[in-house]
Amino acid sequence: MKLNQNYANLQESYLFLTIAKKVAAYTEAHPDNHIIRMGIGDVTQPLVPAVIEAMHKATDEMAHKETFHGYSPDQGYDFLREAIQGYYAKRGVALKLSEIFVGDGAKSDVGNIVDIFADDNTVLIPDPVYPVYVDTNVMSGRKVIYLDANEQNGFLGMPDENVKADIIYLCSPNNPTGAVYNRAQLKAWVDYALKNNAVILFDAAYESFITHDDLPHSIFEIEGAKKCAIEFCSFSKTAGFTGVRCGYTVICDELVSDGTKVNTLWARRQATKFNGVNYITQRAAEAVFTDEGQQQVKDVINYYRANAKVMVDAFKEMGVWFTGGENSPYIWHKVPDGMTSWEFFDYLLNEAEVVGTPGSGFGKNGEGFFRLTAFGTLEKTQEAMERLKKLLKK
Amino acid sequence: MKLNQNYANLQESYLFLTIAKKVAAYTEAHPDNHIIRMGIGDVTQPLVPAVIEAMHKATDEMAHKETFHGYSPDQGYDFLREAIQGYYAKRGVALKLSEIFVGDGAKSDVGNIVDIFADDNTVLIPDPVYPVYVDTNVMSGRKVIYLDANEQNGFLGMPDENVKADIIYLCSPNNPTGAVYNRAQLKAWVDYALKNNAVILFDAAYESFITHDDLPHSIFEIEGAKKCAIEFCSFSKTAGFTGVRCGYTVICDELVSDGTKVNTLWARRQATKFNGVNYITQRAAEAVFTDEGQQQVKDVINYYRANAKVMVDAFKEMGVWFTGGENSPYIWHKVPDGMTSWEFFDYLLNEAEVVGTPGSGFGKNGEGFFRLTAFGTLEKTQEAMERLKKLLKK
Repeated sequence: MKLNQNYANLQESYLFLTIAKKVAAYTEAHPDNHIIRMGIGDVTQPLVPAVIEAMHKATDEMAHKETFHGYSPDQGYDFLREAIQGYYAKRGVALKLSEIFVGDGAKSDVGNIVDIFADDNTVLIPDPVYPVYVDTNVMSGRKVIYLDANEQNGFLGMPDENVKADIIYLCSPNNPTGAVYNRAQLKAWVDYALKNNAVILFDAAYESFITHDDLPHSIFEIEGAKKCAIEFCSFSKTAGFTGVRCGYTVICDELVSDGTKVNTLWARRQATKFNGVNYITQRAAEAVFTDEGQQQVKDVINYYRANAKVMVDAFKEMGVWFTGGENSPYIWHKVPDGMTSWEFFDYLLNEAEVVGTPGSGFGKNGEGFFRLTAFGTLEKTQEAMERLKKLLKK
Repeated sequence: MKLNQNYANLQESYLFLTIAKKVAAYTEAHPDNHIIRMGIGDVTQPLVPAVIEAMHKATDEMAHKETFHGYSPDQGYDFLREAIQGYYAKRGVALKLSEIFVGDGAKSDVGNIVDIFADDNTVLIPDPVYPVYVDTNVMSGRKVIYLDANEQNGFLGMPDENVKADIIYLCSPNNPTGAVYNRAQLKAWVDYALKNNAVILFDAAYESFITHDDLPHSIFEIEGAKKCAIEFCSFSKTAGFTGVRCGYTVICDELVSDGTKVNTLWARRQATKFNGVNYITQRAAEAVFTDEGQQQVKDVINYYRANAKVMVDAFKEMGVWFTGGENSPYIWHKVPDGMTSWEFFDYLLNEAEVVGTPGSGFGKNGEGFFRLTAFGTLEKTQEAMERLKKLLKK
């Protein structure tokens, strides 16, 4: 047999491996260290009581013949899709149940969505970016062009009529930069996509961190988006499901290419290469949308937001340029003049015992920047910011 | 954007939809019916106590910060991979942990494995067969050739040196025929694959139904298989996890193509397009391998096996040709002379109120055959066989 040769074109990803090695070496040399980890985008707070209760109840159902559940419906149980439908309705977005696909997380769906598109599409991907967008397209041999996100445009790249793209990835609130598109900016992207017969793959995994009322949580809040966008969302950051695995993808009937509904292709893809999400997990996700569940997950998000606020205040006080923090669990800041992202990583580890993520690991435009996350504890976040202030305050 | 045009070459799958419609129409016309359903391959017995206990315990861990689990390791937790490793060791198959990939079910992995192979491989697929093998290759535009399985070869096709194939799908115990390859037959396939530089994709989802001690549960029990095979297995039928979603795929380091370890490509694929299995589910799967769990899941399988035995005895008594039943939850039998599979479906529904699956739905060689499953209750299985005997006994 012959292997997929496109895999040879993937860049080896040593980012988190290198971080782990450097931290291990430091720890060995300094056994009495007090390292604070702000590098990883994983949550740390436990699942909320409403979710735990739903899980225990569903587990008990699985223990009895009369209430046992076998294979899930391909697109997910109606009870969960109705809850998601209700969540969108609150923002004025009307969806049919058949337009909602329950999956095992945004990463799987964002990765697998490329299956339904031809290999000769041109793909536009922001730089810096979550590496999955690039890697999944390199794996299928697609032409990738980059959208420059940088200090000048606040890390929110905008469409350029001179650039022709068929598939456009947008992530808002952004990983890694925390920057968020406003309505006018998203409208410009929708207009570009409609004019150029392009599709926008909109990653909304961090939407629940948005605090400003005027910022869109869903691209479908923008007129015309149903005709040109696919939206990916997740319970990972909304409800701490990183270790539970559940997300959803929305493809409206209005998204049509050459007379074919894109929804139909994804439905066929999922029916063929996926077999539904765990029943207990779907009941847990349903519980997130109850009044009790919504209040509880908001409390957890507010905990992380308070951390982000501590970081935002510290960076403002230090006078260091940054994006994110207000509508996102990430702070993306400039490193001191003359340092690379990795030099700053070493500096911060050695001088302040704080671990973050070098921006250059997310693309060339990330060089000179650094990502810190708000997913730790309040006490450690405060302590880390005190250490940074001593180091960086001008 | 352009869609993947290969999807237009997929055959629409109306098999289970048509069955559902016919059953609904019959039910409406006969409100007082006593239909027995033996058509679907889903399990009906609840999860065993050891699994339920593990799930409750893991759920409680997720409720507390100190024991909460976020993202799973890409290939699964060591505790589960060690349990799987131990399960293989009992059959004399030594595996490294890095050769075991925990996934969300055999269907996902069997479907997604095509990602790592070039599109210009020739694929050999048995007929009749589980439709996923064909559809996933049609989706990527690969050339598919068919391996005839029929009454003459006991629905166990064997290699033909005149046929050149790069990727070979084998499913044993087979879905839909219940036929099982013996060691000599699998050895012939391994020899063919090694000689022709082909890879065998071995679907062992039904291995736990094997009762005869001399039949192989894993292709890795055959010498040389580590150099030419990938094995897919699942907890769906072993432990009733169809609604829980967990499986595992084994790719040994010895499987190399042009100097590249296939294991490395699959690891990269999974790290990019998958984000691990639910922690609670992995703990549940671990519990399947404890002494208590093994005994409990064996009891459930023995329940289904007893149903299969009732079916085997009935078909022997009726003198109707069949495969399966002894080492499989499926009975695959000939329909009466002069009838098509669909005609027999209608006949059985109308005359005996028993629902099965027409063999022609699994490929052209399935015409004239019919699949019945052992996943019902003992009482209904016995009743169904009494009705069949009245109808078919010569």
